[in-house]
Amino acid sequence: MEIFCSARARDDHRDLLDAATPPETRWLELHEDGSATIDGHAVELREATPDVAWMTSDLVQGGPSRQFFGLLTRSESVRWLQSSAAGFDHPIFGDLVERGIRLSPAHISGPPIADYVLRAALDHLQDAEQWRRAAADHRWEPHEFVEMGSTHWIVVGLGTIGAEIAVRARACGATVTGMRRSPAGDEPVDAMINPDQLLDTLPTADIVVLAAPSSPTTDGLVDDDFLARTKPTALLVNIGRGALVDETALLRALDDGRLAAAVLDVTATEPLPADDPLWAHPKVAITPHSSALGDGRHHRAAEVFVENLRRYLAGDPLLHEVTAADLGRS
Amino acid sequence: MEIFCSARARDDHRDLLDAATPPETRWLELHEDGSATIDGHAVELREATPDVAWMTSDLVQGGPSRQFFGLLTRSESVRWLQSSAAGFDHPIFGDLVERGIRLSPAHISGPPIADYVLRAALDHLQDAEQWRRAAADHRWEPHEFVEMGSTHWIVVGLGTIGAEIAVRARACGATVTGMRRSPAGDEPVDAMINPDQLLDTLPTADIVVLAAPSSPTTDGLVDDDFLARTKPTALLVNIGRGALVDETALLRALDDGRLAAAVLDVTATEPLPADDPLWAHPKVAITPHSSALGDGRHHRAAEVFVENLRRYLAGDPLLHEVTAADLGRS
Repeated sequence: MEIFCSARARDDHRDLLDAATPPETRWLELHEDGSATIDGHAVELREATPDVAWMTSDLVQGGPSRQFFGLLTRSESVRWLQSSAAGFDHPIFGDLVERGIRLSPAHISGPPIADYVLRAALDHLQDAEQWRRAAADHRWEPHEFVEMGSTHWIVVGLGTIGAEIAVRARACGATVTGMRRSPAGDEPVDAMINPDQLLDTLPTADIVVLAAPSSPTTDGLVDDDFLARTKPTALLVNIGRGALVDETALLRALDDGRLAAAVLDVTATEPLPADDPLWAHPKVAITPHSSALGDGRHHRAAEVFVENLRRYLAGDPLLHEVTAADLGRS
Repeated sequence: MEIFCSARARDDHRDLLDAATPPETRWLELHEDGSATIDGHAVELREATPDVAWMTSDLVQGGPSRQFFGLLTRSESVRWLQSSAAGFDHPIFGDLVERGIRLSPAHISGPPIADYVLRAALDHLQDAEQWRRAAADHRWEPHEFVEMGSTHWIVVGLGTIGAEIAVRARACGATVTGMRRSPAGDEPVDAMINPDQLLDTLPTADIVVLAAPSSPTTDGLVDDDFLARTKPTALLVNIGRGALVDETALLRALDDGRLAAAVLDVTATEPLPADDPLWAHPKVAITPHSSALGDGRHHRAAEVFVENLRRYLAGDPLLHEVTAADLGRS
């Protein structure tokens, strides 16, 4: 068996990977400069024939992603791609699955994204910006703030990420309603609603979190109708996908006082252009698609790969495998 | 029975108070302008003889505290003072207890203070300030951050406030060590240490929270010795009392890189003078003794007063009553 991955991922998790693979496994390592080696010997990527590919975040965040996906796109040998990302909306994944390559994303972003959402919500509820501004001027000006315990949250998309968010919010005393198309029944929330109930539930929410993937049914979800139902004091947090929000409608709602603030880690266009009005709006906080960038993700990614590799070799179902139907390609 | 309280507290909690008191109860209401009434009739405070006094936060936060404590200081009728604050280090409380007035503070600040601490810790771990600065310049610059799940907390003072902090931190995956002179055994933490073990445990802590009262054994706790043991990446959060921290030693440690940052909701001098170096230090965030100012505290204060009033009338022990010994006056 030959496994294609970044040299960095191989180095960082060598012990874990070696313990999980037969000794005869060959590791096709892609280096930062785009070159490749097997056992330290240089090889030509165009001649490589790996069976399995493991996509880690270092490849796509400033790494040799072009060479990695170049091989996948050409390869007739790769049977399975393990991704370390949760999303698979990029067209390249659909193309691979159509060509018969199995695809399993990893659901390892819950903890950091939930940490991020909690920070954003607490910052809003405490109006910490007012403390920061006063401190910059050396002014001692106390203000009362809203406790988490008096808030109601709606988490749109109650998967692994939404569940981590709900656990944290409820530990702080918040009441959490989850929205999911097909509830599993074990969601750690106070109530579940289906998409048809969302608009009627919105007026009760202090914190609205978008934790859903981009899909034909979620794209443009936050539109004028949606924003006509939100509390004027509510915060919208988007850690799903930029496509979920009609950004023009959002700015209109913020200007009209139909929503208090928005924290957006994802935007329709990424990176967000410097002249986009979202940057300068006083009620919008932009972060650069970073909510998943917790320091624990590398280790979790390796653990998922090792577990799925065990399943792959044993012929067991892979964790989180997606099909052409999931990708809208069936 | 005559009960002395603010007109505002009487108004805000009328139904709750009426349900808990005999109909013949007289309410001596102190108005914002310092005048007093009983049943709407003006009375002279210097002639009033209430049995019970209830101190709510509106009295001390910009309210007629001078008139309130003036009556208490002179009164020969008051038998019991219910405070809505947790602290009783102000000398006036010792004086009252020495004169035989029973005193019961309220422990109702846990939820908002824990919310505050969680925000401060998440902001530090995520280096959200870097996102805010980049956003101000319309720059899209992702960075990796530390997840709560990889952090170790030490909470110095594991009472009702420390327990709320521990519950939240652990729900986010953190490991929490509590320090308490006399553990009850039911603290919601991963480990308990006693004060003698603190210095040896400090090098393992990413977040150090001071949640202890001011006392001869805690004043000056954070000194050069303490700060010689902290991690260079650690955050210190003080929501206890300013007296716990040697502020000169703290600034020295921050300048020398022996501690990453400090979030101080309390300072040795309050309000903090505009020319105090703490305001301008880039590694210090000051908030104006506001971490307890959650919107749920008024209702919790009324609930505690009503419960203690029931106990007072029944001759049962009061919740959280303090003695001259607690105040160092025995």
